[in-house]
Amino acid sequence: MENFDALNNVRVILSHTTHPGNIGAAARAMKTMGLSRLYLINPRYFPDAQATAMAAGADDVLANAQVCSTLDEALHGVVMVAGMSARVRDISQEVLAPREAMPLLMQQTRQQVALLFGTEMSGLTNEELARCQLMVRIPVNPDYTSLNLAAAVQLVSYELRLAAGQGDCGAPEVTPASAEHVEGFFRQLEAALTEIEFLNGKHPTKLMHKLRRLYARARLEPEEINILRGILTLTTQYHGKLKQELKENVQRD
Amino acid sequence: MENFDALNNVRVILSHTTHPGNIGAAARAMKTMGLSRLYLINPRYFPDAQATAMAAGADDVLANAQVCSTLDEALHGVVMVAGMSARVRDISQEVLAPREAMPLLMQQTRQQVALLFGTEMSGLTNEELARCQLMVRIPVNPDYTSLNLAAAVQLVSYELRLAAGQGDCGAPEVTPASAEHVEGFFRQLEAALTEIEFLNGKHPTKLMHKLRRLYARARLEPEEINILRGILTLTTQYHGKLKQELKENVQRD
Repeated sequence: MENFDALNNVRVILSHTTHPGNIGAAARAMKTMGLSRLYLINPRYFPDAQATAMAAGADDVLANAQVCSTLDEALHGVVMVAGMSARVRDISQEVLAPREAMPLLMQQTRQQVALLFGTEMSGLTNEELARCQLMVRIPVNPDYTSLNLAAAVQLVSYELRLAAGQGDCGAPEVTPASAEHVEGFFRQLEAALTEIEFLNGKHPTKLMHKLRRLYARARLEPEEINILRGILTLTTQYHGKLKQELKENVQRD
Repeated sequence: MENFDALNNVRVILSHTTHPGNIGAAARAMKTMGLSRLYLINPRYFPDAQATAMAAGADDVLANAQVCSTLDEALHGVVMVAGMSARVRDISQEVLAPREAMPLLMQQTRQQVALLFGTEMSGLTNEELARCQLMVRIPVNPDYTSLNLAAAVQLVSYELRLAAGQGDCGAPEVTPASAEHVEGFFRQLEAALTEIEFLNGKHPTKLMHKLRRLYARARLEPEEINILRGILTLTTQYHGKLKQELKENVQRD
């Protein structure tokens, strides 16, 4: 279930974007994380074939993009703005990591909020900075800070999705077997290992302990226990068959 | 301060990548997060002008990329593989979100570890899946799951970077065995299971797959592999002894 109301109230505002491919890639990044409201302040080229190509299946996000001529227009009705800053600036301002900032932004999504991204080369202008309640910086390699615009949109949208409580990756979970089921397996294992004289040595308890530790870490499922016990049963039956043939041959002596 | 040793031990493996631009964009994404070791399994086009263009300043990552012809080559010496899965599959396997999985991967970075990304259209093959100890799925909008390959690399590298900064959680650590050590065990296991006719049935591959899954989850340590192989060796020797006695009795007839 998507948290439709919350994510629908988040605008992604790209200011003075130079490369139309970045607009398309940003639209795709937004949509993968459940965002749809794209605002463009004076993009150099838009609409543009490169934007459409990079958007892949997110052309609906592009088609509904609001093209604005001023920051005021893009921020109309917005109650909280999180600005993305790549650089350390003169005027010291508290800057948060996306993981800290996005939950704060999500708290306000009963109303309109915005993520504001500056132009590719120089980031946010002082005018844009002045309108932000939150400054956000993505932690990057200090020796190479060249995060692509669409990549930044992807990371922040992802953090927003997690903050919205939509972080479930929809994965099947492991269902561990019950204690008695597991113990039954260990009893059979110990018996089989004793039979083949793996456990007749110096440290039988220690070895069983190590095997227990291994299988405990795997958190065995019921079906897996059935497979393992099936292997042990067949091993023992195979031994039995060999012994029986041996015995019959001895008797025929 | 970068945690150089740890991030230097992380390989990003891209398997059978179709679009060279994605390779370049992935290199850039890696470098922004402090990763540098790129492995390419049979890329359709590489080197390629588009890859270089998309890499921006990460051309050193491209220049040092290892082009491999097999998965074994790319995984040589690797002790833990995290595979990126976009799809829900038949054989249910525990799948973690990047935020859960990357700290587990970071714990093993005193040795080589790998992030494995499948081809753009269809993701990881079953052969590739079988080699992963961790399955990772990025939470996405269920109505639009079309995450670009380089965007996925960006998100997972970011989570890895955050996990690298979180330090040690103080939990006892598992030191996993290398890929080739693990494969040696699986070969011996398969041979032994074939001998006792556990694997003569309808679904030998499926059963081996399930066993691989179980042991992948356990993240076998070298000593544990030695124990398991010791069990298999003794089982086989015991069979041999019984068969030899049988043979001698038959000859005495």
